[in-house]
Amino acid sequence: MRVSQADLALAARLADAAGEAIRPYFRGDMGVELKEDRSPVTLADRAAEAAMRRLLDAEAPGDGVVGEEYGTKEGVTGRTWVLDPIDGTRSFTVGRAIFGTLIALVQDGWPLIGVIDQPVQRERWVGAAGRATTFNGAPARTRTCAALDGATLATTSPHLFAEGDVDHFMRLVAKVSGGAPRQGPVYGGDCYNYGLLASGHLDLVCESGLQLYDFAALVPVVEGSGGRMCDWNGDPLTASSEGHVLAIGDPARVDDVLEALRGAHDH
Amino acid sequence: MRVSQADLALAARLADAAGEAIRPYFRGDMGVELKEDRSPVTLADRAAEAAMRRLLDAEAPGDGVVGEEYGTKEGVTGRTWVLDPIDGTRSFTVGRAIFGTLIALVQDGWPLIGVIDQPVQRERWVGAAGRATTFNGAPARTRTCAALDGATLATTSPHLFAEGDVDHFMRLVAKVSGGAPRQGPVYGGDCYNYGLLASGHLDLVCESGLQLYDFAALVPVVEGSGGRMCDWNGDPLTASSEGHVLAIGDPARVDDVLEALRGAHDH
Repeated sequence: MRVSQADLALAARLADAAGEAIRPYFRGDMGVELKEDRSPVTLADRAAEAAMRRLLDAEAPGDGVVGEEYGTKEGVTGRTWVLDPIDGTRSFTVGRAIFGTLIALVQDGWPLIGVIDQPVQRERWVGAAGRATTFNGAPARTRTCAALDGATLATTSPHLFAEGDVDHFMRLVAKVSGGAPRQGPVYGGDCYNYGLLASGHLDLVCESGLQLYDFAALVPVVEGSGGRMCDWNGDPLTASSEGHVLAIGDPARVDDVLEALRGAHDH
Repeated sequence: MRVSQADLALAARLADAAGEAIRPYFRGDMGVELKEDRSPVTLADRAAEAAMRRLLDAEAPGDGVVGEEYGTKEGVTGRTWVLDPIDGTRSFTVGRAIFGTLIALVQDGWPLIGVIDQPVQRERWVGAAGRATTFNGAPARTRTCAALDGATLATTSPHLFAEGDVDHFMRLVAKVSGGAPRQGPVYGGDCYNYGLLASGHLDLVCESGLQLYDFAALVPVVEGSGGRMCDWNGDPLTASSEGHVLAIGDPARVDDVLEALRGAHDH
């Protein structure tokens, strides 16, 4: 499977369209509503997804579309665009510019292109199969990480782990922090954490409960910058990974992370 | 006690000097070291505090100075500048532009001026006794909050609460979220949360373990925007508040918050 310049250009135009739809609502009257699980959705989420779908209907009418807000459109090409107009809606609603628009092009279950776009700070990570990830057009690389002790771990919120999962997560926290609260996880951040990992500013992201539209775009970004994405067993992420997502900047630390997470099982 | 234009102008120049010192290190080689409690300090923290102290030595040589990195200089005027060059050093080290420089002018134990400055996004909140708080020069106002249920609560990390404190905090979390994890606290953010509260983007901030240099600057910003700052008993913040800090955007919710926090005591 090859990634064409045309597809990359379309992904970029999708991100542009979403950003244009989102920016006017930032710190303005965004019409926050709560969904059934009390997660928020805003006029900006809907406007951004609608703008991207209009572009896809016009320019790639045979491709499928899966979006967080407007559901699934079946395609005829075997290609699907997976859209999350605002990942990190809570950050968006409180006026923090560390949310992102996620755009993935998936073919035969494999994400070929991934975009993480921060429209207020105008920051964009683009990953594509077989290519080096870029941040605002320049190469992005993960950093090396000599040991788990002292590694920087990020996650959005400890409350987003299911009850069994949080014990595993806290084992990993203990390994990276040596028990010091101020060396504990960096919280908040959603998809933005994966971009920062791709650019070598942090070492690990560990989350659970992620949906396909939450992680499909992250895989090409992280893998194309030298990092590894997998589930909590070290297997490739699929729709059946139960949303157990790991991003590891230095592949030499994968086994250490998996062992730390497993710890709670064994004792 | 009156706030002079000269003092406000000096506070602004201090923030400018800190920002100039910090920006070159952001996402660059910042020389992270861990202090005794494993909280990080960087070349940027030190350069920014040194730049502010140079300015104060030249322009206000009789004033005292208390800084996070370089300790206390006794003054002869009864006035003390309280400086935290980077509040949110962990956010800074991972490349998130939601940290801030804190500058307070304290006289007779009372903070007269407070500045929260985000030097990368170039955002600045300025509060002063008897004046309306400004955000980048325009008036900032907190928002109303009709009830705790559904209010947006922010804090930097649940791991920064002492063991007894976290139970109280989680009572407050239960009140605002109705038990829904996705309506739980917004994590991360440090001083930036107080600025966002002053501008009406979130309702509550609750923290413990804060030092004088962490909260002195926040008080004029929050109070001058219509909010209330107090300790967990509703009393004014002092050095003996054990770092139990509350910021409440809508003063009509103060009693509800105090009652929610106390809950764990009574049952």
